[in-house]
Amino acid sequence: MQLPRLSKLPKLAGIRNSQAKAGLPPGTLIFVGDKVSDKSQVDLIAYNEHEIEEYSSQNTEQIIGRLDKTKVNWVNIDGLHNVDLIEQIGEHFHLHPLLLEDVLNTEHRPKSEDYADHLFFVLKTLYNLTGDSITYEQISFVLGKNYLLSFQEKEGDIFDGFRNRLRQINNNKNRARKKGSDYLFYRLIDTVVDGYYSILEKVGERIEILEDEVYDNPSRATLKKIQQLKKELVFLRKSVYPLREALSKVTKGEYSFIKKDTLPFFSDVYDHTIHVIETVETYRDLVTGVMDMYMTSVSNRMNEVMKVLTVIATIFIPLTFIVGVYGMNFEYIPELSWKYGYFGTWGVMLLICIGMLMYFKRKKWL
Amino acid sequence: MQLPRLSKLPKLAGIRNSQAKAGLPPGTLIFVGDKVSDKSQVDLIAYNEHEIEEYSSQNTEQIIGRLDKTKVNWVNIDGLHNVDLIEQIGEHFHLHPLLLEDVLNTEHRPKSEDYADHLFFVLKTLYNLTGDSITYEQISFVLGKNYLLSFQEKEGDIFDGFRNRLRQINNNKNRARKKGSDYLFYRLIDTVVDGYYSILEKVGERIEILEDEVYDNPSRATLKKIQQLKKELVFLRKSVYPLREALSKVTKGEYSFIKKDTLPFFSDVYDHTIHVIETVETYRDLVTGVMDMYMTSVSNRMNEVMKVLTVIATIFIPLTFIVGVYGMNFEYIPELSWKYGYFGTWGVMLLICIGMLMYFKRKKWL
Amino acid sequence: MQLPRLSKLPKLAGIRNSQAKAGLPPGTLIFVGDKVSDKSQVDLIAYNEHEIEEYSSQNTEQIIGRLDKTKVNWVNIDGLHNVDLIEQIGEHFHLHPLLLEDVLNTEHRPKSEDYADHLFFVLKTLYNLTGDSITYEQISFVLGKNYLLSFQEKEGDIFDGFRNRLRQINNNKNRARKKGSDYLFYRLIDTVVDGYYSILEKVGERIEILEDEVYDNPSRATLKKIQQLKKELVFLRKSVYPLREALSKVTKGEYSFIKKDTLPFFSDVYDHTIHVIETVETYRDLVTGVMDMYMTSVSNRMNEVMKVLTVIATIFIPLTFIVGVYGMNFEYIPELSWKYGYFGTWGVMLLICIGMLMYFKRKKWL
Amino acid sequence: MQLPRLSKLPKLAGIRNSQAKAGLPPGTLIFVGDKVSDKSQVDLIAYNEHEIEEYSSQNTEQIIGRLDKTKVNWVNIDGLHNVDLIEQIGEHFHLHPLLLEDVLNTEHRPKSEDYADHLFFVLKTLYNLTGDSITYEQISFVLGKNYLLSFQEKEGDIFDGFRNRLRQINNNKNRARKKGSDYLFYRLIDTVVDGYYSILEKVGERIEILEDEVYDNPSRATLKKIQQLKKELVFLRKSVYPLREALSKVTKGEYSFIKKDTLPFFSDVYDHTIHVIETVETYRDLVTGVMDMYMTSVSNRMNEVMKVLTVIATIFIPLTFIVGVYGMNFEYIPELSWKYGYFGTWGVMLLICIGMLMYFKRKKWL
Amino acid sequence: MQLPRLSKLPKLAGIRNSQAKAGLPPGTLIFVGDKVSDKSQVDLIAYNEHEIEEYSSQNTEQIIGRLDKTKVNWVNIDGLHNVDLIEQIGEHFHLHPLLLEDVLNTEHRPKSEDYADHLFFVLKTLYNLTGDSITYEQISFVLGKNYLLSFQEKEGDIFDGFRNRLRQINNNKNRARKKGSDYLFYRLIDTVVDGYYSILEKVGERIEILEDEVYDNPSRATLKKIQQLKKELVFLRKSVYPLREALSKVTKGEYSFIKKDTLPFFSDVYDHTIHVIETVETYRDLVTGVMDMYMTSVSNRMNEVMKVLTVIATIFIPLTFIVGVYGMNFEYIPELSWKYGYFGTWGVMLLICIGMLMYFKRKKWL
Repeated sequence: MQLPRLSKLPKLAGIRNSQAKAGLPPGTLIFVGDKVSDKSQVDLIAYNEHEIEEYSSQNTEQIIGRLDKTKVNWVNIDGLHNVDLIEQIGEHFHLHPLLLEDVLNTEHRPKSEDYADHLFFVLKTLYNLTGDSITYEQISFVLGKNYLLSFQEKEGDIFDGFRNRLRQINNNKNRARKKGSDYLFYRLIDTVVDGYYSILEKVGERIEILEDEVYDNPSRATLKKIQQLKKELVFLRKSVYPLREALSKVTKGEYSFIKKDTLPFFSDVYDHTIHVIETVETYRDLVTGVMDMYMTSVSNRMNEVMKVLTVIATIFIPLTFIVGVYGMNFEYIPELSWKYGYFGTWGVMLLICIGMLMYFKRKKWL
Repeated sequence: MQLPRLSKLPKLAGIRNSQAKAGLPPGTLIFVGDKVSDKSQVDLIAYNEHEIEEYSSQNTEQIIGRLDKTKVNWVNIDGLHNVDLIEQIGEHFHLHPLLLEDVLNTEHRPKSEDYADHLFFVLKTLYNLTGDSITYEQISFVLGKNYLLSFQEKEGDIFDGFRNRLRQINNNKNRARKKGSDYLFYRLIDTVVDGYYSILEKVGERIEILEDEVYDNPSRATLKKIQQLKKELVFLRKSVYPLREALSKVTKGEYSFIKKDTLPFFSDVYDHTIHVIETVETYRDLVTGVMDMYMTSVSNRMNEVMKVLTVIATIFIPLTFIVGVYGMNFEYIPELSWKYGYFGTWGVMLLICIGMLMYFKRKKWL
Repeated sequence: MQLPRLSKLPKLAGIRNSQAKAGLPPGTLIFVGDKVSDKSQVDLIAYNEHEIEEYSSQNTEQIIGRLDKTKVNWVNIDGLHNVDLIEQIGEHFHLHPLLLEDVLNTEHRPKSEDYADHLFFVLKTLYNLTGDSITYEQISFVLGKNYLLSFQEKEGDIFDGFRNRLRQINNNKNRARKKGSDYLFYRLIDTVVDGYYSILEKVGERIEILEDEVYDNPSRATLKKIQQLKKELVFLRKSVYPLREALSKVTKGEYSFIKKDTLPFFSDVYDHTIHVIETVETYRDLVTGVMDMYMTSVSNRMNEVMKVLTVIATIFIPLTFIVGVYGMNFEYIPELSWKYGYFGTWGVMLLICIGMLMYFKRKKWL
Repeated sequence: MQLPRLSKLPKLAGIRNSQAKAGLPPGTLIFVGDKVSDKSQVDLIAYNEHEIEEYSSQNTEQIIGRLDKTKVNWVNIDGLHNVDLIEQIGEHFHLHPLLLEDVLNTEHRPKSEDYADHLFFVLKTLYNLTGDSITYEQISFVLGKNYLLSFQEKEGDIFDGFRNRLRQINNNKNRARKKGSDYLFYRLIDTVVDGYYSILEKVGERIEILEDEVYDNPSRATLKKIQQLKKELVFLRKSVYPLREALSKVTKGEYSFIKKDTLPFFSDVYDHTIHVIETVETYRDLVTGVMDMYMTSVSNRMNEVMKVLTVIATIFIPLTFIVGVYGMNFEYIPELSWKYGYFGTWGVMLLICIGMLMYFKRKKWL
Repeated sequence: MQLPRLSKLPKLAGIRNSQAKAGLPPGTLIFVGDKVSDKSQVDLIAYNEHEIEEYSSQNTEQIIGRLDKTKVNWVNIDGLHNVDLIEQIGEHFHLHPLLLEDVLNTEHRPKSEDYADHLFFVLKTLYNLTGDSITYEQISFVLGKNYLLSFQEKEGDIFDGFRNRLRQINNNKNRARKKGSDYLFYRLIDTVVDGYYSILEKVGERIEILEDEVYDNPSRATLKKIQQLKKELVFLRKSVYPLREALSKVTKGEYSFIKKDTLPFFSDVYDHTIHVIETVETYRDLVTGVMDMYMTSVSNRMNEVMKVLTVIATIFIPLTFIVGVYGMNFEYIPELSWKYGYFGTWGVMLLICIGMLMYFKRKKWL
């Protein structure tokens, strides 16, 4: 009987494909990651309190031509495999080669970094596309004076809800339109962190289901699921934990591109991130508890089986001895010629049997 | 035989219902939590050394109209599902939208935060309403120059004892009436932290009971209770631990709304909180010890059973062999025709039996 | 067979009786603790290099009247249940109500706290009165300019040795008489910390005895003792650990009442405290090791038993089969009519038996 | 049956051969390490944006004569057993005797140290030469104003790729040629850290293979491999962990020899190092998980065997009792003379057998 | 069968004999430790670059008379039980009574402490005198302007190698002679720390030997050795760990008696100490691994035995049933009168036996 196999190890951030780059100078731009989409596209949303304009193109120069310094310019790039496109963007915005390299390496750990005239920020979005396994996508942001660049691995709909809100013209409460690129930056990060909660909710449900399974019917499949969950929590933790430090730097007002009245919002996201991290730690505790219960449960069942079987054997062993006694061929065994010898023997055996059962019962062995 | 089920996972702070909010802008006020009460009401207690006045209403404007800047105004709001009411309060006191959002999210972690003209503080009260399970309620405070707002999920009687003391007119020792809103704030937090002690006391009793149970009669129900307790301690820790940091900020005098002569009182609550946290850690150690004892105890019992049963089998196996010998049908077996062959065999078997019992006894196997 | 019971949980500091206080204002003085003595008494020792005077009374005013500002006044209060007495002392020395409350709560964690005109210090003394269990007593100190108050739960003889030294008039080396109240304070704390060493020594001896017991004769009583020791180390740690921080504050010269040339003495006590804490940690490691050995030892013994019994069963099972063969009633079984059939069978069985024993021996199963 | 042996302990850094040095004064230069190569050679690459010159010699003076202060001089020394050669180098560059001692002790932990007129840096390169075991080589760097010394244990090809890039004359993107010795220093460290990734990738693959093996066919060889991997991760961690601190010092700009515009590059290597350390920690978690699975898997298999065998025994024991009953020699056993007694007995036994099998099936014991 | 006993607990630093001191004033000098030598002697080596003089005496005054302020004076005291001698030394050099007390308490933890006109330093030397057990000796240093006092428990040869180097007159490289007392102090500490390496080397060898033993022939003696090693590592860690902090203070240049150009040497010893600590931690990991292997190994062997024995029993149980069948005494059992009934039965039983063996083989149970 074979144990079911765990799903494969998630590809570990920065480990994958890294050999391809070894030896190349740091300025060389190479896409390190899985090409998850064929398309690559640049979208520009330029807005202020009164106007909003949108362009979409695969030609960088067109997009750059439309940038409007009097508005907030949100340039969103989908698909990182198009290295030339990234390079053109980088040139226009004077991005450091190392920054571009980090954008293209989709297995970077979350971090925030201050460059002279822009702020760089990397984090992971989590999806629960199909089934239980968690998918990771890296999103990089470059925040400048009146622009925000966002780099996504593939076309995503994670920001679509927010885009729709931006487009609403006559909305008195539409704070986003009145504020600068730093607030836009906050809203996008907030959306990503909100996404963590729904992932955690599903993980929580899986823990509850596993707990039930462990009590009702702990099979090898349960063990597989527990191990799988444990592993996912290891990777979840690895993806979220560094975000704490990255946001902490932002919160402390180290970066000049975040205006002072936007800071409380970042504090809020920071609180959420700590909350997420603490919940991941709590879940690890709970999964460890479930694993312990599984072990105890399986060993209890085994003991149960062995005990009952052993009791059966123990009852019959003395009885078998007795019938053996009267199977002996001695010439003189007085009991053999007694009239009720046979039935008497049965009676004695019955008494022994009942006696032992009662003894076992009293000892709580049954 | 099926293991009893653990009670369900407590709803995890901030995870629950969070999906409903995803995508909405941060200023949107939505009640995130379980509606635990239908009623929602605002109470005002305005007092100074000489006078005390109380109003109760569901109309915010009435309450606001009665605020008296020459007194300490304690505004207590019961029931957070009435979002409009919260919003009106927020408008009057110029509360930041993010603060209101935190008030309405009943799954926030304890924290203290400084706003320009008020101090925000969130913590959890613990109840042991029925049976052993612990109930959590979130209470938020907003401390301003001469007012204190307290937001409760439901009508609570946790502060009733203190209200009665406040009302006593002719009480020379009634320090509370002579002091400002910061002292009021301290007294309410102190009441909450005092409540932790009684919860811990009950948890301590449960540990003692479980220890006895593990020695006397370790059943599956015991295992269930141990795991339940372990889990509750995980959540208890999560609720109390961040309070340490929140109070530490207050104690360090970072907040201008806490007068200098009130600081020693906060140091005192801070000491109590550390004491509570240390006790929770100690309890975790103890529960781990109880779990270890359970495992050892169960495995000892199993071994006990198996050993006795195996000893019985072992004694009868050689005897059965002997009676088998004289059940053989060889034509020439001299013993069979001996006069006392049968009784002699019994004698030999008795000797073997006694010999083995003595051997087992000496080896301490019985 | 029932496992022996662990002794009850030690009452946990600050948890006990705390409910009685809930809701009362912080200034209310209530004795929280077990009344361990009926008597309550105040002793005054006032001394300088040349003179020493002693008074003893149950009347606080008498004692206060005898205070001599030109000497070091050591006021020792035995028995905290006499709240009035404590209150009078508090009034005379202008002690903060929170300080008095801490004095009366005998389940406080060790701490040092700076008040405007005195220094407050709480710690635990440990006794090994009878048998192995450790008894805790709380001692509080209030150090002022020329006085030291010490509050003890019961009449103690822990400071008697030091009192006798103080009384020696003509002692050139009697540094204590030449120094101020801060040195007196140091000497008393030093006496308490010295007491920890003798407790640790006894704990060390118990570990050695347990180790021997685990090797010689690991019974359930051993398990009980190991668990008991483990638990005591948990509480020992809890009592001593916070002392580190309390003394660290003193050592850093944060308190004005400790003169600069007394500081090296406090550094010395601080070193001893760290030493005690490290030893407690080492003991925890050792006890964990003893527990592991117990488990291994018990499981080894069980395996030993099972193996021997199984070997016996295994040897007789084939033999029983053989005698069964010749008990069959087939009409034609040639061996039955052989002359030496019976003895031959015995011979064969003997050979099988010896063969198996040799095989088991070679395999090291016996 | 004997467990396979783990490969020998890797030689522990600094422990090996250290006895040979004990007692000698700190200035004494002795090669501490395994002589891994016979050859020892000095290579000089001197370059600026326009020119590049290369010399190779075993004569230090020749090399020193060719140093060109207007260029970046990279002096690479292969083979540390030639102590005289190292000493001559040291004299020319005014290296501190302790620095030279560290260079010659190939079991040093990674560190960076500031000397008045140069910066010293030690780290480990990892190879996966043959099979699974990891080989460590120590590389030391001395960075001066316009030179970089690199000391390798043996001739290596780890820097060959980079050397080739340096030689390319007409390369517009060849940043390395335009920059100073600090950039050269960065590039070499970057190359070493890149090498860690490929080692980690292989370790990751081995974990996956082991996971499969644990599910498919957990043998003793698997256990051996798990333990081996665990051990290698212990040493891997020990080799990489201190690099974090060493690089951190460089990143913080503590060293005057690193120009300000080269710092971002070191931040990048620092990020990679943290990433490597986190991955090593994750791998340790995963290997622990694999070990747990191995234990569970082996114990499950054992239980499987025992259960089936016990079930077989349990079914036959009652049957054997029944046939024993009718083997008794009582004179009056009515069943014996029934016509279908024999076949009836078979029928009863068959029914019992089927009944028990069904019972076991329903109980899921089979 | 009795488990072998662990060797006794090493005497725990500071715990031993401490009761003897309880109650005495801190200035009282009492030797706390085991008297390991009868002799007590004072040696003086006074040297500068040109001269070296040596005196040896049991009379302190003679030695003091020979002190030469123009030279470096190294006063080495062997044997601490001679309290008077220590006191005379202390008086001459104006040592603080607490310092002298620390010198005499041979169970102090390593520390460095700054006194007004000298620096105090305590650490442990380790010996591997006989067999595997490690012996600890405490050495205290007092470093003054032009003198160094070293206090040893017994006559040691640990510094003999260094003494011989000092005596070499015409040695150009003899840096020691040219430098001050701080360098001498460094050299002695360096010698002690070098000694740790050789202890660690031996511990490493013992781990390797234990690993082999666990694979080849894991007996109870192995278990004993593993536990012994574990315990020794606990005490080793305790002895070396605080040295880190003590040296760290020296390295940071906090002490005025260490000249600036001697600091790099202390940094070097500090590095070595960290290296030793890390190696101890690594060894603890390895020993834990060996213990795990022992457990797995022992349980594997036990399973092996049980499985084979159970298989034997399982094969014979059905056979015994069959022979039982034909031992029944029914009047009509057709098979009994068949000509080849007996041999046929043998045949059937042989087939069953072979079938089961093949089944077990295929299932890999054998």
